[in-house]
Amino acid sequence: MFHPLDPLSPAEHRKASQILRNYHAPVPVRFKVIDLLEAPKQDLLAYLQDGKFELQPPPRKAYSYYHRNDDGTLRKATINLATETIESDTEHPESQGPADIDEINRIYNLCNAHPAIQEEIKKLKLPDGAYVTNDPWTYGTDDPNERRRLYQCYMYIVLKDDPEANHYSLPAPFAPIFEANTFELLKIQRLPLGVDAQLDDEMKPWDPVKPVEYSASLLGDSYFRRDLKPLHIVQPQGPSFRIHGRQVSWQKWTFHMGWTVREGPVLNNVFYDGRSLFHRVSMSEMTVPYGDPRSPYHRKQAFDLGDSGFGITSNTLTLGCDCLGHIAYFDGIRTSGSGEPVVMKNVICMHEVDNGIGWKHTNFRNNKASMVRNRQLVIQCTATVMNYEYVLAFVLDQAANLHIEVKATGIVSTMPIRQNTYSPWGTVVAPGVLAANHQHLFCLRIDPALDGVQNSVVYDDLVPVRGEPDLDPYGCAFRVQTVNITQPGGYDLDVSRSRTYRIINPKHINAVSGQPVSYKLHAAPSQMLMMGKQTFNYKRGVFSSRPIWVTKYRDGELWAAGEFTNQSRKDTGMEIWANCKESVENEDVVLWHTFGVTHVTRPEDFPVMPVEVMNVSLKPSSFFELNPSNDVPRSSQSHNQSTMHVLLHTSVSSVCCNLSILR
Amino acid sequence: MFHPLDPLSPAEHRKASQILRNYHAPVPVRFKVIDLLEAPKQDLLAYLQDGKFELQPPPRKAYSYYHRNDDGTLRKATINLATETIESDTEHPESQGPADIDEINRIYNLCNAHPAIQEEIKKLKLPDGAYVTNDPWTYGTDDPNERRRLYQCYMYIVLKDDPEANHYSLPAPFAPIFEANTFELLKIQRLPLGVDAQLDDEMKPWDPVKPVEYSASLLGDSYFRRDLKPLHIVQPQGPSFRIHGRQVSWQKWTFHMGWTVREGPVLNNVFYDGRSLFHRVSMSEMTVPYGDPRSPYHRKQAFDLGDSGFGITSNTLTLGCDCLGHIAYFDGIRTSGSGEPVVMKNVICMHEVDNGIGWKHTNFRNNKASMVRNRQLVIQCTATVMNYEYVLAFVLDQAANLHIEVKATGIVSTMPIRQNTYSPWGTVVAPGVLAANHQHLFCLRIDPALDGVQNSVVYDDLVPVRGEPDLDPYGCAFRVQTVNITQPGGYDLDVSRSRTYRIINPKHINAVSGQPVSYKLHAAPSQMLMMGKQTFNYKRGVFSSRPIWVTKYRDGELWAAGEFTNQSRKDTGMEIWANCKESVENEDVVLWHTFGVTHVTRPEDFPVMPVEVMNVSLKPSSFFELNPSNDVPRSSQSHNQSTMHVLLHTSVSSVCCNLSILR
Repeated sequence: MFHPLDPLSPAEHRKASQILRNYHAPVPVRFKVIDLLEAPKQDLLAYLQDGKFELQPPPRKAYSYYHRNDDGTLRKATINLATETIESDTEHPESQGPADIDEINRIYNLCNAHPAIQEEIKKLKLPDGAYVTNDPWTYGTDDPNERRRLYQCYMYIVLKDDPEANHYSLPAPFAPIFEANTFELLKIQRLPLGVDAQLDDEMKPWDPVKPVEYSASLLGDSYFRRDLKPLHIVQPQGPSFRIHGRQVSWQKWTFHMGWTVREGPVLNNVFYDGRSLFHRVSMSEMTVPYGDPRSPYHRKQAFDLGDSGFGITSNTLTLGCDCLGHIAYFDGIRTSGSGEPVVMKNVICMHEVDNGIGWKHTNFRNNKASMVRNRQLVIQCTATVMNYEYVLAFVLDQAANLHIEVKATGIVSTMPIRQNTYSPWGTVVAPGVLAANHQHLFCLRIDPALDGVQNSVVYDDLVPVRGEPDLDPYGCAFRVQTVNITQPGGYDLDVSRSRTYRIINPKHINAVSGQPVSYKLHAAPSQMLMMGKQTFNYKRGVFSSRPIWVTKYRDGELWAAGEFTNQSRKDTGMEIWANCKESVENEDVVLWHTFGVTHVTRPEDFPVMPVEVMNVSLKPSSFFELNPSNDVPRSSQSHNQSTMHVLLHTSVSSVCCNLSILR
Repeated sequence: MFHPLDPLSPAEHRKASQILRNYHAPVPVRFKVIDLLEAPKQDLLAYLQDGKFELQPPPRKAYSYYHRNDDGTLRKATINLATETIESDTEHPESQGPADIDEINRIYNLCNAHPAIQEEIKKLKLPDGAYVTNDPWTYGTDDPNERRRLYQCYMYIVLKDDPEANHYSLPAPFAPIFEANTFELLKIQRLPLGVDAQLDDEMKPWDPVKPVEYSASLLGDSYFRRDLKPLHIVQPQGPSFRIHGRQVSWQKWTFHMGWTVREGPVLNNVFYDGRSLFHRVSMSEMTVPYGDPRSPYHRKQAFDLGDSGFGITSNTLTLGCDCLGHIAYFDGIRTSGSGEPVVMKNVICMHEVDNGIGWKHTNFRNNKASMVRNRQLVIQCTATVMNYEYVLAFVLDQAANLHIEVKATGIVSTMPIRQNTYSPWGTVVAPGVLAANHQHLFCLRIDPALDGVQNSVVYDDLVPVRGEPDLDPYGCAFRVQTVNITQPGGYDLDVSRSRTYRIINPKHINAVSGQPVSYKLHAAPSQMLMMGKQTFNYKRGVFSSRPIWVTKYRDGELWAAGEFTNQSRKDTGMEIWANCKESVENEDVVLWHTFGVTHVTRPEDFPVMPVEVMNVSLKPSSFFELNPSNDVPRSSQSHNQSTMHVLLHTSVSSVCCNLSILR
């Protein structure tokens, strides 16, 4: 038996694929996704909030994206695992399902081996031992009439066969396009090498450059700095968290550790000190449009959740590499093309972190310092989407704050450029390598349940009082101007007014402040999508055009750009939900936050990019009657066991010697 | 012998005060500040960059704020410690020097014991054992003709004599004003208890409420959570840093650990991998205007560096409390009123931190993950300014990023309010306690030296290409629009264009990208000062009205609001420097960044406020030819020694039990 939100077990997964296979027999089916279909919220809440658990849990169900092998049309089925029946089965001929691993592998191998492509490679006249590999990319959209399932492969030269060889440092100037149902090579598209879209008359031999490597074995031992001393995090009494199944409790927090193929880690049923905070917190979507208008780069716009998934691309994390300290792991599960469950080991890691001072006050009268440290619980995954990596973390702390942290790392997408040529569309990050400027626009979905699911969203502007000399004779006064959001829609941030969105429960009033209980969103003000309304970039992901969205809750409305983003021509998510005319006051409401970074690439981002960190927080505001971390034991040396460094108070001669190394 | 930027030694300090005493003998003098007078930059650079250290170091000098005891007029002297002469001595009758510790203590004791104030306290009819204490505040400014040196003391009730008793939870409704040269009580100002400025007809007895305490002894053992397990940070081979005197080297960084009474920690002569980055990085000023217009709160506008100082108010840090791991400490030094040096032990701590993933890439072909951790060096101080605390940290990492982190914590400034009354000017954070809304506006000073001191400042806007269909047929293109700053002045941020300021060395071109070497400022876009140009709030701290300032370097221009901020009527810093007409292109230039938070208080901020974190970073952009952390040894379990958590895969019964605690 399971928590209703547990991912499918391998047995459930097998049952789901078997039911669907039987349903279509004798025609074989090709599976793309099999994952838990979450129970309707009403049923979930009834079961979870019953508390006595006397109610029957809602029946376990799965959904699957797949196609019949007599037909490439995308289908979606929902399967009741209790009754072993197909509850729905629909065709989606206008849409493409996400990329899946078996498909990517097949395209990848096909592209590497295809005779026509081998012919093209020969023209590069590569040195002995060198070969060409590829990254299969979802195709993107530039034609409203396109209905084929397409991949475009970007080609890279490998000079030495090393598992970490940085082929992204040696992009080849052509990119084959494949049909992914017939697996037919449609075209080998040549790539421009100059400033504009102009192509060379013919493929020229490769102009040799030295690749910029990150491979430890290629770089050799002597390359590395030698003065980094080990740093261990030790918890001699074990961690402060407890895990039962996927239910976690830590420092007054409890939540269910969800996971989906599409979203990766999901926080379900988040409580603090026995009070309900959030029904579900998840990364909903992310889009990466590129700013280089030269074909085929204009089509590069990944939706890294909808086109593939943060779950399915998650790394198996390894002890002592991805986290430090005492680490718990959670697994995920995905399907193979044939419907077999593939357990993805350790796709979520969870551990405690000391993040410095939590709060401190010193009474100046007696120098008595009171101090607690900021212990945090970090729940993290790393998703590899071809060249690029995202680290997504939910971070809980003892002051009842929930932080959502995204780190962008990995290798920037590279394209070839003639040596000693520069481009307005990106930065030359290595000889012969252009990294186009691009945006990463994430959409966080917050399904709140502050003391229950009937919540509202408001925003506060901080505005000066002006022209009221009786009230404000010296002109220093400012007020909080609160605006209630009454209708679904897209809303803006405004740094000049410190505009802050809050989720409130209008029926629960804080006894101390007299204000409705609330959590405020510490947003990450970001440049929104730069592409205009007429573009496919915009039409496919309207969520990326405004930082704040408010919608009324409906089952299944989880993904900001809609269900099928791969080669999509329009947004079937926020564009529709945010335009409903209905009340969102004191209702079951959802708050969405779009944030991100416009990445102007740097040589310093190559070969692998140091993490670029984005942070969003949800913090209580009149939800509690005092600092929730007031009861954290005070920081003490007996508990923390730090070590004092012995300073060498040296004479000037050694200071000078040290200074001289600055030269 | 000393590094030219070392703080004064106790012997130097004594010599400075002796020279000044001799100079004025037989009239005794009262010292407020004695600190290092940094040598002219030209002399410093010549000495430091000579490298052979054959040059004579620039002579050690001190400056002092003080007054003669026959006269309260503020004076400033500069003292040549080599020649033992007074080089300058000026009177500043229009200005007030900063608050100092001896003065604050005297006012504090006077206010606690003053018979007239005791009379007032009696009217409160406090319970037995209770008494009243005070926080002396710098007075602020509301009268252009005021020339007296003033303090206004805010009064608080202490019910139990405990070193951590939270008297801020029991504000008393009056506030005495003292003259600080004569130490005369000028007035006992009554405080309003309602929504408006209206005062009660007479002082009423105290309306008892229960204080909200943070004192471990008052709260008692049973109050505290018991499930926080110890977390130790252990460096079995010691730290990765080396310290000689105050010269630090760590992971290719070298810098001199400066410290001043006014600014606290200062990074001097910052190099990475032998290349010059910054001449001096410091917190320059911070102002805290309050938005409550009712007298005397309209005068509350602390300049916490200029009015007192982040150095002089820094806590003596204790092992295992303020930092975790292997900690090095640095001392500071201040003067007593009589000119005696007071060594301030351990006012800066320095230690290494593991801040998660530094960079990561997994080759999807073979699942080979390459990963470095993000080791950081944290240099930190905690300043206690009466009720409030600031944690200021400089954080270096291996990717050559310099982060400046400010944490706001401590106890919000409180004022009395009648029970069950609410105010538009703040939040009731505890019964009878109003915490007025306020701003914290910091000004970071960055004196760059990217490959030398001749630098420029530019900003980049990211703007879509529009209306060029030949160039951009699908409308996805965007460009970097770079604007050179040619003149000193105040400049704006613009999130909608990802506006980013960069310091460049226009004469040094990156061989890979073809662009001038640069460091970009990852600013913290913030609401600027809300008070209009006609207010003293504005006139006293013009730096707080714009986020970015650029000035040409001049010796002594260190403090954004000018030298004397206490009771100032106008800004003698940025207001003047930013209005100079001169070139700042390829010159010795200074970049200033104003950032902060407008704090709408919450009950969750009381009794002690969980840290509110602000972060600014300086990151290389075409300064290096590749990722500076490419040579960091890869993360491995043998180095990191993490522990695997054994998951209990429990049956549903224990899941249910766990869920039931959510009720």
